[in-house]
Parts: sequence; structure tokens; C-alpha cells
Amino acid sequence: MTTNELEIVQSTSKKDKPSQDQVPFGTIFTDHMFTMEYEAGKGWFEPKIVPYAPLTLDPAAMIFHYGQTVFEGLKAYRTEEGRVLLFRPEKNFERLNLSSERLSIPPIDENVVLEYLTKLIELEKDWVPSTAGTSLYIRPFIISTEANLAVAPSKTYKFMIIMSPVGSYFTGGLKPVTIHVEDQFTRAVKGGTGMAKTAGNYSSGYQAQANAKKLGNADVLWLDGVEKKYIEEVGSMNIFFKINGEVVTPALNGSILKGITRMSIIELLGTWGIEVNEKKISIDEIYQAFQDGLIEEVFGTGTAAVISPVGELNWQGKKMIINNHEIGELSQKLYDTITGIQTGKVEDTMGWTVEVK
Amino acid sequence: MTTNELEIVQSTSKKDKPSQDQVPFGTIFTDHMFTMEYEAGKGWFEPKIVPYAPLTLDPAAMIFHYGQTVFEGLKAYRTEEGRVLLFRPEKNFERLNLSSERLSIPPIDENVVLEYLTKLIELEKDWVPSTAGTSLYIRPFIISTEANLAVAPSKTYKFMIIMSPVGSYFTGGLKPVTIHVEDQFTRAVKGGTGMAKTAGNYSSGYQAQANAKKLGNADVLWLDGVEKKYIEEVGSMNIFFKINGEVVTPALNGSILKGITRMSIIELLGTWGIEVNEKKISIDEIYQAFQDGLIEEVFGTGTAAVISPVGELNWQGKKMIINNHEIGELSQKLYDTITGIQTGKVEDTMGWTVEVK
Repeated sequence: MTTNELEIVQSTSKKDKPSQDQVPFGTIFTDHMFTMEYEAGKGWFEPKIVPYAPLTLDPAAMIFHYGQTVFEGLKAYRTEEGRVLLFRPEKNFERLNLSSERLSIPPIDENVVLEYLTKLIELEKDWVPSTAGTSLYIRPFIISTEANLAVAPSKTYKFMIIMSPVGSYFTGGLKPVTIHVEDQFTRAVKGGTGMAKTAGNYSSGYQAQANAKKLGNADVLWLDGVEKKYIEEVGSMNIFFKINGEVVTPALNGSILKGITRMSIIELLGTWGIEVNEKKISIDEIYQAFQDGLIEEVFGTGTAAVISPVGELNWQGKKMIINNHEIGELSQKLYDTITGIQTGKVEDTMGWTVEVK
Repeated sequence: MTTNELEIVQSTSKKDKPSQDQVPFGTIFTDHMFTMEYEAGKGWFEPKIVPYAPLTLDPAAMIFHYGQTVFEGLKAYRTEEGRVLLFRPEKNFERLNLSSERLSIPPIDENVVLEYLTKLIELEKDWVPSTAGTSLYIRPFIISTEANLAVAPSKTYKFMIIMSPVGSYFTGGLKPVTIHVEDQFTRAVKGGTGMAKTAGNYSSGYQAQANAKKLGNADVLWLDGVEKKYIEEVGSMNIFFKINGEVVTPALNGSILKGITRMSIIELLGTWGIEVNEKKISIDEIYQAFQDGLIEEVFGTGTAAVISPVGELNWQGKKMIINNHEIGELSQKLYDTITGIQTGKVEDTMGWTVEVK
């Protein structure tokens, strides 16, 4: 890997920042972005922080035709004293390389790229909002840029990081959601790209999500692509169940995304003496547990919401109301602890946060 | 659908055309391209033929993050008398709309877009090469352009057509290829996007293709994603078998692309009194037929190669040599007839060709 010196081109004008109370998700971007190029035989080069600006690409660029691309999502949080913290950013770049491997994209140097990200955030520090529940969302991504219609890996790539201030995912605090258990459409299957954060995995879910919304659900719970029986993940979150005192979550099987919040929850619960059972979980098993009155809590986990309590699961016309549509005790405690660590309110005994000076 | 008048902006300079003997696939583009915009609530608008030029997109454009995009591939052929023919282009735009439906992209008006394509080809007529086996490859595609990181269908799209002169797929005529039967990686599964021509379906196959090439194979034969047992398609082609006098091909099941060459072969064979049995075909069944000496021919079908004879199938260390690595009689006859119709050498009794005046 060829990595040259980071070049910084400062923006001559600054954009207005949005009001912290009403920040829409992912439509307002900071003044600068990071870019780096790749060419076969040369490696990654020209790392740059430049003013946020449109991309210029040939219409034959492979990204438009064959979807060879990967991305990540992480956040920077502001503490009460004004410090800026990242949450386990090294895990995101580690996962980016795993995704890249699946998509035949060359790896980046995780440590070097984390340094570049840190420089970018330093420059954009004023963009990290401070009101409760807000953060600066960070989107690293790699696109294939060779202008060639041959169905084969690109010889050139562009790595970019863009950043967007985001508001609280739940206005007015945590709120349990209603989820449709999808048994027609498939998100991913063994041998496919389900474990990778790659573009095609997301738009392929839009039809199912639209159908679920029509039926009054906020999101979709995906079942496995083979038997439509085993639980995989919710929308773009992992899922956990607390059943008769035991916490269970689907085991990583190659078609489920290796969530960093998922991993953190398992580690955190471990320190609380609660072992998470990572296993194959069938929807029948969940329905049986529901009928037996054993389901105590269900929650999704991800960077966007951290913890998203599930109040209702709808599966083949059967309605499972979870914990009387209320937030479970464990869900609330996990939410408070993780968001507390992220924002410096709770001591980070896990060593998860990285301060941007 | 709002469709305004087509605007044509002619290029002031013309590019050099490649030598007809050595045309690379998909890296040289004609002087002009077609573009059209979409906005929710407004429909498709601003149809334009403009000089071929780079695209400018926000780095947050949804195409880069969530892969909401579809495409098509078809060709224009030059006859000996210099006429230019398209092969069943209406089928491509019909399929584009099917793909768009799966990806939650708004439909285009198939007839109107076919007219725009015809105008574009009229303008670029000199780019249609004339030596044997050459053609002008046409790539219509739609990309999602809204700058928004929310995981949801885009509110804006761009439809484009770019065109590239292409050489003969097989230098020196038809040549049987060696194919690896893939039993680890998955291309598509029931409920997924396999029937759609969408970007994510292609890059997800690169790892399997690289592995197959390392083992000396030209391409991959995909099995179904559920049982890894039933035959789906080869690389980006459909597949046919002639077994003990009967022609069979995998039935369209939602995870196989509805090939236009596939459809044409079934119809053509029908007029020859040969009925194609579209059914579920297991790889075990093929291996058994091979051992019994009943496999007469195997061939892939697609726009790129028209007919691609398969000389060898490798499955779990078992090698099936087909027809002594030679081109089968039926494969050759289908190739000659379809390429003959496409280039005006054989009378088009099927009504498949559309002349561009």
C-alpha cells in the first residue's frame, strides 16, 4: 500500500449549521470530506481533505453498473464538557476490509485511515452537535471507478469519508416499534453478501419495507433465505431477545451483519454477568415462547438507534405483543449505559471510546 | 409520466473510432449519450441527447450507498448492405421496468424510450461496426441520485443510455468453454433480486469467478441458493442442455434472469419442431446423464456471446467433458440462425429485428 502525505485543502466558505433541535438524518453535510484514490499496481494514494463537493465520474464507471462498493457508518459524540468521542472506530475499518474482501475490493490500511478520519473530525469539530441524542454521523465508503462495462473487478477505486450532523433517532426518548416478520422477500443467503456492508443489500429490501409499512409496521425482521424459518436481522439492525431470563441473538452465520453495537452489547452484558447465547433462533420457537408468556424483551441494535425496543412482531397474521408495548428494563439499561459511554456520562471501563483532540 | 420534447445537443468534435479488428469490450464510447431526469411528483423529464461526458453527483447520492439501480444490455448490428438493426429492443425496456419494480424505481414509458434510443443510434450510425461478429453495444441504466443517507427509495433518478462498439466475443469463431459449478458462493435466492438486472447481482459474483478462473475455468455455473442443487445460470448467461435428444433449460423461478436470447431460442426451436422443456434441473441429474453418456450439448445464451458452447463442467472435483470439447450441431445452428437474423443474412420470419433508418 502506497500512502502519501495527507493534503488538506480548506474550504474558503463555511456552511450554516442546522438547528440542533431539528436535524434531519443524512441530508446536511459538513464543509469538508476525505478522498483517496486507488490504482491497480500503485495501491492507495493521494489522501486528501478537501471542501465537500460533487464527484465527477464517467457514466461507464463500474459503480453504476455492477455495484462493486462497500461502506461503513459510525458516529462522533460530544460530551458535556465539549470533548469529542468516537465509539470503537477501529472496528468499523476492520469490518470495512471484511466487506471489501467479499466484494473483491483492495483493503485499506485501517490505522492510517483512522488517523485521516481523526484529522477530518478535528477540522470539523464545530459540526459535532451537543444536544441530547445528537451526533455527527460518519460515512466512509469505497466505490469502483474504472470506466469499463466488462463484468470484472475494477482496476481503480475511490475511498471517501463524508459526515452529517444527525438528530436524536427517537424524538422524545426510546419508543418501542412494530416489526413485520418478512416471509416472502429475502435479504441475504449463505454464500451471498449478507455479512458485507455493500450497497446491493440495502435497496433489495425496499419492496419488503414498503409492504411492511403499508401494514402499519416500522420495519422488517428478515428470516433466513433458505428455509424462511431462522431469524436474521431487523432492517439494518441486529436483534436480541430476552426469553425466560436468557438473552439470545442469532449467531453470525455469514448472512448476518457483524454489528458493532451487537458486539458491544454482548461484551457489556458479559461484564454484568449475563451471558448472551448466540445461536440459530427459529421464528416458530419465538412464537412458542410468546404463547407461553416467556418473552420478556425484544430489541434491535445498531449505530443509528443504539437500542430500538420492539413492542410488537407480526408474523403470518399472528400478532406478538412484547412487554405490553413498553420499554424493557434491560433495553433501557443497555441504552443508558452505551449512550452514556459514547457521550462521556458513564465511565468507559471497556476502553471503547477514542477522543478526538 | 411527464415526457417533454427530446432536446439534441450535438458534439462539436468527433472521437476517433477504434479499428474494427481490435475492439475491446466496453471501454470506448460513442460521441453522444442519452439522459433523462426523474423527480417524485413530476415524473420523467428533460430527455436529452448530449455529448458523452462525465456525470456530476453528490457524494451522498443514493447510488453510491444503497445500490438502487437497474440496467439493460442490447446491441445494434450492421447488415452487409449497411442497414442497422436492433434485436427485440422492446423486450429490453420491458425487462428494465420489471427490474425497476423489484428495486422500487419508477417505470419508464417503454415505447417513448425506444424512440429516444432510435434517435440516438441514428445520430451515431457511423459507430456501428461492420466486420463479422462486431456490433454496437447499448447500455441503458437508471441510477438513484438523491443526496440522502436514509435507507429508503430515492426521490430522484437519472436514466441514461451509453453505447460502445464491441468486437467479436469469440475471436476465431465459436469456442467451447470450461465452466466451474459453484457450490459455495450464491448468486441469488428466491425472494431476492436474481430476476432483476441490478448492480449488486454482478459484483457479488466476483469472488466465485476469481476462484473458478484460478482453477482454469472461464466462468461459473450458479446453483440455487437454498439447496445448492438446482442449476440456475452461467455467469451472466442462461444455460441449455441437450440430453438424449431433449432440450432442457432451468425454468424461470424468480432468481434466474429472464434472458431475451433464452426466450428467442425457445421460440426459434419451437418453429423447428423442437420443444424446450423448462424445468427444475438438478446438478445430480446432469451428472447422472453425463455418466450414462446422454449429454449431447450444453450451451450458454446471452446478448454478449449469443451462444456460448460449454465443453467442460467441473463440479466437486468431477469433470464432465461435453461433446468431446466440440461445438454441437444444434449450438452451431442456433448461433448461425440468430446471428444471421441479427445481421440480416437470414430472413427474419420471427419479426424480431427493428431497423434504424
